Amino acid sequence: MTAPLKIAVTPGEPAGIGPDLIIKLAQEPWQAQLVVFADGEVLHARAEALGLPLTLLPYDANNTDIQPAGSLYLKQIDKAVDVVAGELNSDNGLYVVETLRQACQANIDGDFAAVVTGPVHKGIINKAGVSFSGHTEFFAYQSNTIDVVMLLATEGLNVALATTHIPLEYVSRAITKERLHKVIHIINTDLKLKFGIQTPHIYVCGLNPHAGEDGHIGTEEIHTIIPALDELREEGLKITGPLPADTIFQPKYLDDADVVLAMYHDQGLPVLKYKGFGASVNITLGLPFIRTSVDHGTALDLAGSGNVDPGSFRKALEKAIELAHHQQ
Amino acid sequence: MTAPLKIAVTPGEPAGIGPDLIIKLAQEPWQAQLVVFADGEVLHARAEALGLPLTLLPYDANNTDIQPAGSLYLKQIDKAVDVVAGELNSDNGLYVVETLRQACQANIDGDFAAVVTGPVHKGIINKAGVSFSGHTEFFAYQSNTIDVVMLLATEGLNVALATTHIPLEYVSRAITKERLHKVIHIINTDLKLKFGIQTPHIYVCGLNPHAGEDGHIGTEEIHTIIPALDELREEGLKITGPLPADTIFQPKYLDDADVVLAMYHDQGLPVLKYKGFGASVNITLGLPFIRTSVDHGTALDLAGSGNVDPGSFRKALEKAIELAHHQQ
Repeated sequence: MTAPLKIAVTPGEPAGIGPDLIIKLAQEPWQAQLVVFADGEVLHARAEALGLPLTLLPYDANNTDIQPAGSLYLKQIDKAVDVVAGELNSDNGLYVVETLRQACQANIDGDFAAVVTGPVHKGIINKAGVSFSGHTEFFAYQSNTIDVVMLLATEGLNVALATTHIPLEYVSRAITKERLHKVIHIINTDLKLKFGIQTPHIYVCGLNPHAGEDGHIGTEEIHTIIPALDELREEGLKITGPLPADTIFQPKYLDDADVVLAMYHDQGLPVLKYKGFGASVNITLGLPFIRTSVDHGTALDLAGSGNVDPGSFRKALEKAIELAHHQQ
Repeated sequence: MTAPLKIAVTPGEPAGIGPDLIIKLAQEPWQAQLVVFADGEVLHARAEALGLPLTLLPYDANNTDIQPAGSLYLKQIDKAVDVVAGELNSDNGLYVVETLRQACQANIDGDFAAVVTGPVHKGIINKAGVSFSGHTEFFAYQSNTIDVVMLLATEGLNVALATTHIPLEYVSRAITKERLHKVIHIINTDLKLKFGIQTPHIYVCGLNPHAGEDGHIGTEEIHTIIPALDELREEGLKITGPLPADTIFQPKYLDDADVVLAMYHDQGLPVLKYKGFGASVNITLGLPFIRTSVDHGTALDLAGSGNVDPGSFRKALEKAIELAHHQQ
């Protein structure tokens, strides 16, 4: 019998709903050992506010048991100051970063099958004096990874992005043959290795309306995208496109696509989130370990209230476990 | 009792599926007089190919009867040469344009409640020597209308576009305060007059990912969009936004929105067409008459086969009738 998977979990911003969500989810049985990288006091206090039972078991690398419902394994990381639900405090900014750093390192060291991250507040971390532009960039830097790809997944649809959080004005210039080669290679490799898909079928959107309509509405398809895709096909990759983004999300294509590559953020994510309806998962491809994340923010006003839906965090945990099984 | 509505219908490209669709829909009873602007021979020949009965009744401005199922009123416009289903022929390019011109003029003259257009083939019209960039532009020119707005509608969602068929690279520059003022005024006016909505609630997308995230991902929201929306609010318009495009299409917003204004084509239409699933309607706002259209192309390979789904054409007719009732 294989030892159960160990999943590293970072609740993220302690004043937000991250702790609430993992405490709620800890009430259910899981087919993996869930190890939270956080301060136990924060979790106990939040469980009390929520009126939920919580037993924290000390993490031990040699222990392969699965926690019973109502409990979590804990890798203790000390907060700097007390946490008040709903109130950001930059004094704990370094604490948040330390939970991410240790969870990342433990994954690099091979002690875990995946890391699942709750929502952080970028602003308060930066206010604490740490330059922080997001989990993805942080994990890439910590693991010496140069290129990563953001993929969002929901039931029946995976959307990857060729560019992410840049102004729309710069998107056209950012779409180069080199970038498309890198991004599509990462997608192809990770869909094989992490998703267990033997020959991933990658559908690719054009950059312009109607995928440029033979050059009548922009020429990036003709000069950049089509040649790049042709080269990748010659390497043996299974690619369809570029197709117009307003028709690519139809069943006749989606039934056949393992992933849709959008050229930019708002071309791919509105459909994904419309379809996913609050239960989509953010997956970072290209890292030397599996990382999934919730697709929402810290929702400070709801912290400690009990009025939170753990749907996305549950999907992130489930997806991490599913991907980890493919890699075993 | 009010006289029944008269709807002008242009089947579009005669070698495409436009004639098939209107012949199929003519088999159903309609609560309006449907007047097809076309050559009767083309319709008879196609009806025979489809094995469907078709009686063509001559159009008479003084006749207010509704056609029985299996028939259509006809405003005869002579084709130049015989039509072969599936085979484009530029000799009939001027014929297609003439059907549009007469249907447009009849609407301007007030003889009709709306015009509903089937799919045309831009390339073959241009090959015929007529500079033609689309129905919308043609009708705007014919009716001396300077600014029009494209709106796509499906059950429960209307999406309007601030820019349409331009390369993505130029979108940022095309989004000016002046354009937003014009576009939103047209939307507001037409939703009142044509849709019968007393105070339209207009939801507006940002241009950049996360609507610019307070200027961290682009500044058009701060310099252009937010000031323009504030000015329009001061005029009394009911506007929410700018909101991130990847979260605006959630029920909590859509339940409240009469229309979502996307800044560009691929920001708004993928969700609309995903939701609409082959049954969305294209509506031109800003014209001095009601114009709706199918949202698909000529599908030459299916012409005469009987294997066509009139879903979008039916919705276009139903929508035209619905809007015309609001205007009565």
